[in-house]
Amino acid sequence: METESRIEAALEQAVRAATAPSCPQRLASAIRYAVFPGGGRVRPGLCLAVARAHDDPDPGLADAAAVAVELFHCASLVQDDLPCFDDAPLRRGQPSLHKRFGEEIAILVGDALIVMAFNAVSSHVAKQPAKSAAILGALARAAGAPAGIAAGQAWESEPSVDVNAYHHAKTAALFEAAAVAGAIVGDADPEAWRATGGQLGEAYQVADDLADALGESGRLGKPIHQDGHKSRPSVVADLGVAGALAQLDRLIGQAMQSIPECRGRRDVQDFLSLAAARLCPPEIRQQTAAAGSGSALDCG
Amino acid sequence: METESRIEAALEQAVRAATAPSCPQRLASAIRYAVFPGGGRVRPGLCLAVARAHDDPDPGLADAAAVAVELFHCASLVQDDLPCFDDAPLRRGQPSLHKRFGEEIAILVGDALIVMAFNAVSSHVAKQPAKSAAILGALARAAGAPAGIAAGQAWESEPSVDVNAYHHAKTAALFEAAAVAGAIVGDADPEAWRATGGQLGEAYQVADDLADALGESGRLGKPIHQDGHKSRPSVVADLGVAGALAQLDRLIGQAMQSIPECRGRRDVQDFLSLAAARLCPPEIRQQTAAAGSGSALDCG
Repeated sequence: METESRIEAALEQAVRAATAPSCPQRLASAIRYAVFPGGGRVRPGLCLAVARAHDDPDPGLADAAAVAVELFHCASLVQDDLPCFDDAPLRRGQPSLHKRFGEEIAILVGDALIVMAFNAVSSHVAKQPAKSAAILGALARAAGAPAGIAAGQAWESEPSVDVNAYHHAKTAALFEAAAVAGAIVGDADPEAWRATGGQLGEAYQVADDLADALGESGRLGKPIHQDGHKSRPSVVADLGVAGALAQLDRLIGQAMQSIPECRGRRDVQDFLSLAAARLCPPEIRQQTAAAGSGSALDCG
Repeated sequence: METESRIEAALEQAVRAATAPSCPQRLASAIRYAVFPGGGRVRPGLCLAVARAHDDPDPGLADAAAVAVELFHCASLVQDDLPCFDDAPLRRGQPSLHKRFGEEIAILVGDALIVMAFNAVSSHVAKQPAKSAAILGALARAAGAPAGIAAGQAWESEPSVDVNAYHHAKTAALFEAAAVAGAIVGDADPEAWRATGGQLGEAYQVADDLADALGESGRLGKPIHQDGHKSRPSVVADLGVAGALAQLDRLIGQAMQSIPECRGRRDVQDFLSLAAARLCPPEIRQQTAAAGSGSALDCG
């Protein structure tokens, strides 16, 4: 099965189990709303790309790990949009989850998605204990405290922010976990893959800052100028647009370079190229090029 | 080590790992605030009581399961108090977590506690795969959707409520998981213990409704009259005070009866008696007895 269909099918299975008929109807609808339709599914795609680069010896476990990273991501989007965080009315061009279902349900969807993420992998423990244990550990590290998504978001409440720790925890940690989990499934050295995931994740954070600073709200399907409005650390504020674009290119280049030697190295390179192309809003490249500060990577 | 010290030590270990120096300081303080000092620690106590009744063959795993159920409980209290739910300024006589640390941090603490709960048990997977897998499954069932804590809370957003499903998911499911997890650790039949946990949990729900309807806010350390204010289903609204007290007694009696035959049956009975005594606010018994509708169980 193609990667995209695998991811959607595995997510559908997880959502179907959580939204069984005994589930309160609004919560069930909201869980589905949080997961479908998705965005780029880049994190689960990375997980499967790494597993496939090592012959994908346990597709069921690879799918479970991919589902888990995507569900953590979905949970983080629902929470980011809440009134006390970004107070965003839109996500992917649709009403944000709390606008559609209310704030109570949005908070509970976050909980349910985190539980579903762990449960996806837990159900493989009996058959694949060593790999499942390692994946569960990587997921917990990426999602919670001291240095996962929850910690990343919490840096925004600190009077003084460690910007590297903030960006790593908020975005890069889950990309790392995706690559690490794929490597674990493929019997490869997970630490050899950590950098690839981390650098792609950092590139995503830079792209997110660029989109927030310069994107068009209608095209992005979500509000912009949140970083400045919320006084959040931003690569664009630190380095300017041209500097941020250069850093984006450098990170993608580093991610490419860091891919460990393996049978499917070329496929992972292709995956990263595609992911990089999606990262870069064309109008930003155009605006910047017109202003004489174009960057090396053509991702239009 | 005595049960209480075991629980506090195991919780301290989980909190210390999550609040390592790399954790943002406010999140770290808030995670600790959510867990210490605790309430009655009844759910982890039940888990350890059941494991001990079967000779406690793996104290580390029993502690991990006990920690997990308590962390889910702590997460649910932090969320219950949020402005969009009970909007409670107090919890256990102190400012509620969001009043002290802000709503953003409160939501992130909920996430972090859920991750910590799974992580506590996951770290035993490599050594005890079969038991850990079963415990992780029981925890996910008790915490998420379709029928765990998140679902229980979500019933409050439905136009029409299945009261049994609501009470079971909101309160009894986690007590069930505590008993089931203790049985799994002790190589006992988990299904034989499910009823004991569930009935104690239902008794707690009835006691919570009674306290909400009749308690003194100062004594409880949290706001009262939330059920009526929020138009939530309540056993007191359905059965009256005397009816609710009778149901509380019946549930405790059923829980006692349901304890499976085992070496430590007497110890579990003692545990349930203590838990039952804590459940019943003396002033409610006194008020009800004075009004001529006393109940059979003396738990003053």
